[in-house]
Amino acid sequence: MKHLGKHLILELWGCDNKALDDQVGIENMLVDAVDACGATLICVKTHKFSPQGVTGVAVLAESHISIHSWPELGYAAMDIFTCGEHVNPEDAIPTIRSFLKPDNFEVINIQRGNIVD
Amino acid sequence: MKHLGKHLILELWGCDNKALDDQVGIENMLVDAVDACGATLICVKTHKFSPQGVTGVAVLAESHISIHSWPELGYAAMDIFTCGEHVNPEDAIPTIRSFLKPDNFEVINIQRGNIVD
Repeated sequence: MKHLGKHLILELWGCDNKALDDQVGIENMLVDAVDACGATLICVKTHKFSPQGVTGVAVLAESHISIHSWPELGYAAMDIFTCGEHVNPEDAIPTIRSFLKPDNFEVINIQRGNIVD
Repeated sequence: MKHLGKHLILELWGCDNKALDDQVGIENMLVDAVDACGATLICVKTHKFSPQGVTGVAVLAESHISIHSWPELGYAAMDIFTCGEHVNPEDAIPTIRSFLKPDNFEVINIQRGNIVD
């Protein structure tokens, strides 16, 4: 069976609270994560909430990487969704770990667009 | 157990091929889907690929809605991720069904950010 997309769902707990609320840092992390997995960035958009929390999405030629953060809980929900054989979403993980420093890193791996040969 | 986010993963097959390649139509569908589930749009970004395919992401105050389409296969991968009690991601589904007209509509429902009371 083939699949069109690789979708990693990351549940990140015990993250660095300051990093989770750092809009510029998160935008840089997204751009670095895109580079790390060999994807092509179309655009990146981040938004800072009041009093806290950041949302960010990197739109890729190969799908997207997103983050929604809850600094007060040390939690971030991330998705790394890529298509194409030349991109490996797992290669983005070290960049994310290095910036957010989660104590607990859970990954759910979903294959999107399954096609029976 | 509580959760911070509701994440619907939609696997849509047998869609209208023209709709899947219609950048303006997909952007309108995303905006309408955001309205339908009572979410707040921060921005929407769509991109048309050559020779075919569209990527679109609506960034929300309550997370995001995304689509990646393969018109040649009649397939779209969509995600509706919302947080907060006032938004129900299921309410976006009729808008999506109406525009893309999938023959086969599979939903995977993932609770993000689970917290044990």
